[in-house]
Amino acid sequence: MKILVAPNALKGSVSAVEAAERISRGLKKSGLDAILDLMPIADGGDDTMDVLVASGGEVHEAEVLDPLRRPIRAQFALLADGRTAVVEMARASGLKLLKSSERNPLITTTYGTGQLIAAAIEAGAKRLIVGIGGSATNDGGVGCAQALGLRTEDSEGRSVPGEGGSLKKVRRIIMDEMLPALDGIEIRVACDVDNPLLGQRGASAVFGPQKGATPEDVRELEANLAHFYGLLAETLGIDVRDRPGGGAAGGLGAGLMAFVHGKPRSGIDLVLEYLNFEGRLKDVNLVITAEGRMDSQTLGGKGPFGLARKAIEHGVPTIAVVGSLGDGEEQLHDAGIRTIFPIIPGPMDLTEAMETGGELLERTATRIGRLISLARQIDLVE
Amino acid sequence: MKILVAPNALKGSVSAVEAAERISRGLKKSGLDAILDLMPIADGGDDTMDVLVASGGEVHEAEVLDPLRRPIRAQFALLADGRTAVVEMARASGLKLLKSSERNPLITTTYGTGQLIAAAIEAGAKRLIVGIGGSATNDGGVGCAQALGLRTEDSEGRSVPGEGGSLKKVRRIIMDEMLPALDGIEIRVACDVDNPLLGQRGASAVFGPQKGATPEDVRELEANLAHFYGLLAETLGIDVRDRPGGGAAGGLGAGLMAFVHGKPRSGIDLVLEYLNFEGRLKDVNLVITAEGRMDSQTLGGKGPFGLARKAIEHGVPTIAVVGSLGDGEEQLHDAGIRTIFPIIPGPMDLTEAMETGGELLERTATRIGRLISLARQIDLVE
Repeated sequence: MKILVAPNALKGSVSAVEAAERISRGLKKSGLDAILDLMPIADGGDDTMDVLVASGGEVHEAEVLDPLRRPIRAQFALLADGRTAVVEMARASGLKLLKSSERNPLITTTYGTGQLIAAAIEAGAKRLIVGIGGSATNDGGVGCAQALGLRTEDSEGRSVPGEGGSLKKVRRIIMDEMLPALDGIEIRVACDVDNPLLGQRGASAVFGPQKGATPEDVRELEANLAHFYGLLAETLGIDVRDRPGGGAAGGLGAGLMAFVHGKPRSGIDLVLEYLNFEGRLKDVNLVITAEGRMDSQTLGGKGPFGLARKAIEHGVPTIAVVGSLGDGEEQLHDAGIRTIFPIIPGPMDLTEAMETGGELLERTATRIGRLISLARQIDLVE
Repeated sequence: MKILVAPNALKGSVSAVEAAERISRGLKKSGLDAILDLMPIADGGDDTMDVLVASGGEVHEAEVLDPLRRPIRAQFALLADGRTAVVEMARASGLKLLKSSERNPLITTTYGTGQLIAAAIEAGAKRLIVGIGGSATNDGGVGCAQALGLRTEDSEGRSVPGEGGSLKKVRRIIMDEMLPALDGIEIRVACDVDNPLLGQRGASAVFGPQKGATPEDVRELEANLAHFYGLLAETLGIDVRDRPGGGAAGGLGAGLMAFVHGKPRSGIDLVLEYLNFEGRLKDVNLVITAEGRMDSQTLGGKGPFGLARKAIEHGVPTIAVVGSLGDGEEQLHDAGIRTIFPIIPGPMDLTEAMETGGELLERTATRIGRLISLARQIDLVE
């Protein structure tokens, strides 16, 4: 029997790489006679770089500006092919870099993400995977583009910084000085939301509040994005206002599409492609995935479901182990996860569960391995 | 595939009978192609009567005295053979009949249990199963024996009541007037402790405190039991002081041995015998049991382990679903439970888990059924 062990991270508790190791150890302990292939996954979020590097590659570091333009060191990775880089916007422009009191999408910028992209290209990347989850910004990706050579000027010809609250001042957008090295670079944007840039489902209205925007701020941010991208369409003929995913990461989705030909793609699909998932499915009998929490709200886009869908196409069933299983177990089953085992051994609070997640995962894998062994040993007399 | 569904109760949450139904429903929902035989079990405790009656029989009621000699109605059962009765001492003389403030083993009596035994014999029973868990008493079973005709007198020839605090006054024990109907009656005592009547491991020292005895009470109770059973040995030649199980239920174990030839037997073994467990194992491929909590402390005597041991003798594996799984999972595995699945879907407190136990059990059974199906469908290409 061959089992592909392909867990997501259990966020806040166990990384995807550790989860794969734990599940593998648990299965081995069960005595199940199986060949294991470890393939931790991510869906474009926090773990993406680590997961891709785990299959080969090296981590680099660059000095960039954080969302409030303070210098920090941020990592990116160059994968084993030497041509593909992984950049996570959250490492340069993420909400996790700010204190709660510092959250303010009127003044935050994606400038650092642009610097990180430039550093990756400098390091030799010809293809970039840009993960855009967890942003602290609502600048339409203008800051990012500025770090790559975009110029934005006000009516007096003065430079306007790329920040959510400044874009209304822009009167002229100049792309002539964009980094020449961007030519021929392929940028894939790991993006699991299809929200457009503007409107009720847009970046400002939907994601602004969690970044610290008041209702009034939301109105201003919305107006500013509408102004900037309207100007871009009118003056340069580049109109990304209706593109699905343009609203991701405070409009960084739109910015990457407009200025560097970024192509949005489902995060899990991108990751699975780079991990050669379909190739590795050959001869596999079972996929075991994992996730922090599953419920009826978590069906769309999430790693394990993308994984299960592809596995089904190859006739391979997927099961899951989870930190927490909410309502909708039957919907999850219908979505392709054949059965789901929670790892919690008894009544306990979230903190204890989080702290012992790795151990609980391992024990659950042992249980599953034992039941599979046992079920296969049952000899039915006709 | 044939599966025997043989759960214990999840105490305080789901009865054994409901547990069997829930597991059965969950397995059916999983689509597993299996014949199910439902056989809820008990190990001599609370659920014993219900579990045995579930296989056929009828429930009777009698008016008896509770541990403080207040009249109550208590149930016993006559099983389908019309010859076997089930009496649970806790229904007449149990701790659950008292408020916390009423607990006092100096004044409580097993008299009601004797009345219940008498009522069962009156109803036609030739064989009795007496479950003796959960007692409120420390009277050495003297109250029980008195209800069946035993006389105990003080030095003046006055009757002494059977209570933990009174036994020191007994100077004469008279068995001549025991109920004639007791002749030829077989009494089996479902008993899972092997504590002797007296000493450090005896009834008073080990179980007295949980019934409300202070350290001083314990000394008095111990001295009284030693006095009474010493007198019995000296004057009537009946010496049960060293018999394993004599210390069960405040010495009711010893009393049943001494006065009605009670034979102690493991509760689960008794129950399994009456349920014809070994006969029903024929053609069974898998036993699924359940228990409220399993950990390294719960190995001895508990229902599921007795069940698993017997199943193994017949070459049938046992798995378990549990409300809570503590330490020692590997020991539990080595003790014969091939794999154990907790039913808790995520972090939650005990109250919530208890309230939704039936539902959680059902969902877990569905998961297990699905994994068994799936494991059996895996086609290994050589």
